[in-house]
Amino acid sequence: MKIAIAQIDTTVGDFEGNAAKIAERIKLAETSGADLVVFPELCVTSYPPRDLLEKSYFILKNLEAVERLAKKCNNIAAIVGFVSVNESTTGKGLFNSAAFLYKGKIEFIQHKALLPTYDVFDEARHFEPGTTHKVHKFKGKNIGITICEDVWSTVNIGGRRLYHYDPVEKLVKDGADIIINISASPFHVGKGKIRESLLTSTAKRHNVPIVYTNMVGGNDELIFDGMSIIVNERGELVHEGKRFEEDFFIIDTEALPAAGDLPQLPEVEECWRALVLGIVDYINKCGFKKVVIGLSGGIDSALVAVLAATAIGSANVLGVAMPSPYSSEDSVKDAEALAKNLGISFDIVPISDVYGAYLKSLEKPLGRSADSPITLTEENVQARIRGNILMAISNKTGAIVLSTGNKSELAVGYCTLYGDMAGGLAVISDVPKTMIYELAKYVNRKGEVIPHSTMTKPPSAELRPGQKDTDSLPPYEVLDEILKLYVEERASVQSIVESGFDKKVVDEITKKIDRNEYKRRQASPGFKVTSKAFSAGRIYPIAWKY
Amino acid sequence: MKIAIAQIDTTVGDFEGNAAKIAERIKLAETSGADLVVFPELCVTSYPPRDLLEKSYFILKNLEAVERLAKKCNNIAAIVGFVSVNESTTGKGLFNSAAFLYKGKIEFIQHKALLPTYDVFDEARHFEPGTTHKVHKFKGKNIGITICEDVWSTVNIGGRRLYHYDPVEKLVKDGADIIINISASPFHVGKGKIRESLLTSTAKRHNVPIVYTNMVGGNDELIFDGMSIIVNERGELVHEGKRFEEDFFIIDTEALPAAGDLPQLPEVEECWRALVLGIVDYINKCGFKKVVIGLSGGIDSALVAVLAATAIGSANVLGVAMPSPYSSEDSVKDAEALAKNLGISFDIVPISDVYGAYLKSLEKPLGRSADSPITLTEENVQARIRGNILMAISNKTGAIVLSTGNKSELAVGYCTLYGDMAGGLAVISDVPKTMIYELAKYVNRKGEVIPHSTMTKPPSAELRPGQKDTDSLPPYEVLDEILKLYVEERASVQSIVESGFDKKVVDEITKKIDRNEYKRRQASPGFKVTSKAFSAGRIYPIAWKY
Repeated sequence: MKIAIAQIDTTVGDFEGNAAKIAERIKLAETSGADLVVFPELCVTSYPPRDLLEKSYFILKNLEAVERLAKKCNNIAAIVGFVSVNESTTGKGLFNSAAFLYKGKIEFIQHKALLPTYDVFDEARHFEPGTTHKVHKFKGKNIGITICEDVWSTVNIGGRRLYHYDPVEKLVKDGADIIINISASPFHVGKGKIRESLLTSTAKRHNVPIVYTNMVGGNDELIFDGMSIIVNERGELVHEGKRFEEDFFIIDTEALPAAGDLPQLPEVEECWRALVLGIVDYINKCGFKKVVIGLSGGIDSALVAVLAATAIGSANVLGVAMPSPYSSEDSVKDAEALAKNLGISFDIVPISDVYGAYLKSLEKPLGRSADSPITLTEENVQARIRGNILMAISNKTGAIVLSTGNKSELAVGYCTLYGDMAGGLAVISDVPKTMIYELAKYVNRKGEVIPHSTMTKPPSAELRPGQKDTDSLPPYEVLDEILKLYVEERASVQSIVESGFDKKVVDEITKKIDRNEYKRRQASPGFKVTSKAFSAGRIYPIAWKY
Repeated sequence: MKIAIAQIDTTVGDFEGNAAKIAERIKLAETSGADLVVFPELCVTSYPPRDLLEKSYFILKNLEAVERLAKKCNNIAAIVGFVSVNESTTGKGLFNSAAFLYKGKIEFIQHKALLPTYDVFDEARHFEPGTTHKVHKFKGKNIGITICEDVWSTVNIGGRRLYHYDPVEKLVKDGADIIINISASPFHVGKGKIRESLLTSTAKRHNVPIVYTNMVGGNDELIFDGMSIIVNERGELVHEGKRFEEDFFIIDTEALPAAGDLPQLPEVEECWRALVLGIVDYINKCGFKKVVIGLSGGIDSALVAVLAATAIGSANVLGVAMPSPYSSEDSVKDAEALAKNLGISFDIVPISDVYGAYLKSLEKPLGRSADSPITLTEENVQARIRGNILMAISNKTGAIVLSTGNKSELAVGYCTLYGDMAGGLAVISDVPKTMIYELAKYVNRKGEVIPHSTMTKPPSAELRPGQKDTDSLPPYEVLDEILKLYVEERASVQSIVESGFDKKVVDEITKKIDRNEYKRRQASPGFKVTSKAFSAGRIYPIAWKY
């Protein structure tokens, strides 16, 4: 049987656009001689639709789209992910389903049974779980259809399996000749390897080939990396779809390609490509054309500018340097050099006059005088002036502000609400500072794009004379390790200390992480690229006793 | 049997404080001659603990607290809500449970079976559902213990029941003489009546008395109103706990009070008391002492100031008027009059100089000249100057900024990110403008607190000459009705039009609501007081095609 894999990028709620894209691939598959074409999970609505699922028109449009698509499937079959209605009057009203389209109609529907409800997933919020799986006979083959989490049943985390039911086991027992999985599995660095390992071991255990079709593209914080996977019944990987772009390919189940070493992406390149894709899709799907970025001369804003220029073109990026009285001499020079290297527009808006006007206006309410020292208050005032200027430029030009804070800062609150946190998209808010350096080196691998002095100067917010990040924080190598243990691996303070860190440092950092949830609650959306991003993936109370 | 109901206010993660409070009530119940004392759902950890449940120390401290509390229960029994560990290696690792403490130990544990996973609830994120309920014999009586949602099984919404299992039915079938429910049921206006109706009908259907103990207090966005309820086996309400405050009372199941009319609170008073309680708890549980509020002379900020002064005392409230060149003459006067009426501190920080400095600095980047018109850009600059000033005062004094935007504005995006939206707590962000007026009238019921001219002037942001809210929005009576239908009742655009609204207005308003999710994503936490609040209760994508 010839199966086409259509790894596509869809937009939430764009029923016309999504259906058109699906119809085009159905036609292509048919003309290419495929028997069946497989699309990702919820490709009709795109993923995640969130509470749009509570709108009746949303469900209706989705059903109509599937009906229309069924009519395109006469001589070819298609499997599409959609939202189906629970006809029972008990339970949630919807299922996350796969429709098997053939002979002009919906021939078979399989509901997803395992609904992920952890980290960024909240599928139990809207969907009733399917209770069983059935094989579907097609051209003499027993097809077992599963949806994303349905193949993750055997995953064992800390000695625990999350689910009581294993759809693959059930389907194989019922005679499935092949397992097809349609997914919307979001990216994080290293996720590809986890998926490969899961699918190869599952195929081997059940002696069944697996065709895994994943979504690609960015939807809000989530980036889907594609990388659809074909595994033979011996558990060998025989083909991988492209990563971070749409793909379309056909495999013949009777003549699968030979197993072989498939290309691996280094982590830094994975992260880079994910961020670029995320920007492209967020900007386009929100309807923006241009972006504006505050350039401090530092490495974070430089990296965001390079990412943005790569994603949407230099002509659509404006960099703005906003020197304060405490900016180093080099900061504007470095920002300007970067802008020149990238070929982006560049502007300088000094903030000293506005800052001076604030200090004067705040003399009475803050009890300040001209020779009062620069404290956190005055630092934040500067950062917020910059936020205001960038937002004014955004309002006037229609460009979206990209904020440039990294995960390490956001974790410990080394950032200013409404200041450097201001913006419509926080591109690198899940990228630890040490990874920022890796990405910057990757950018410069063929020659200087990010200026050398930006790469080598010690990190500084430059909000008071001579300030360095290390005045308030441990070195980023240490901070990022603790952050990874505490946030990604959910290690306890005690176990982090036992793994070799200074207790005082661990206490201080973890307390800062706990205490700064209130800032993160008001952060702009940022792309998830690690196994545990703040925001939807890690929901903490603000008012609690730590 | 004499049952004490301990309606208490606990803090998330404050194991020492919560356990001390529980121990005190156990002792009080014992000395008062009660056989059993009942506490709210998850009283040991407080509710909602969110992803703190993923910390091993959090679970451990909670278990230790229950063990310690068990030792206090020798001659009296207690039912406390806590987190128990799932001993099976399959499924989620935790249960939301009730411990029956007696004879110095945990005598019985009942797990919650129905886990709410909608609106503000995400219990399936952390908990494995219990699969059955068992009656527990105590002093000759069969006690049926249920946890919050467990008694909501029969609720029918739009012809649909959410759950397949009815714990009350099971317990009664097994011979329960009484149903005890421990809850953490959050408030919204009108919720009390819904609970009463549910409990009275359930008791009547099963011919069984119900003792319903609810939590009281605020935790982040959620306010718990208390109002524990006792219903006899004929389904008659015989006692209600206090609303919006802690309570402790004892009922004798052999001699329940006679059924009678219990006091009803008007909606406006419900809302008022909820907001005051919310402020008290948020401020205290976050460790603040003082608040700062921007006073525009308008009704929203006036109401927030009155609420704050009521909640934490006038001495702890600072009002700041920040007139711009477009502020009306009366605005500072009205703000000052309010401050005087309330006895709060008051300061005036004009923003004209800072605003002038911005306009000058922005001339080149925005292509402005001195006679350029005031557009949305310049309006937002003013709002953000105010945000910056309030945050500077907050940074210097340690007072938390209360933002003053209402739900109607937040819904349609008639508010400025980092401007009037800046703050640590958005007190009235779920209160529609028409309810703001009701609350203001309630405040002034015994005499003028909010100045008359604040009450009567047409709403205006005063960010350009002669501006009125109605320049950009329909009258608030219309806006709020559409908002209620679209957001709270999830009505379609078509059905709203059919209910008698102008199509153009409905299209415009609903589009604005859809389009402004990006602002709300960065809003500060605000109290839920309607059946559907933005934020955790209504999670929409930002990048989607509407």
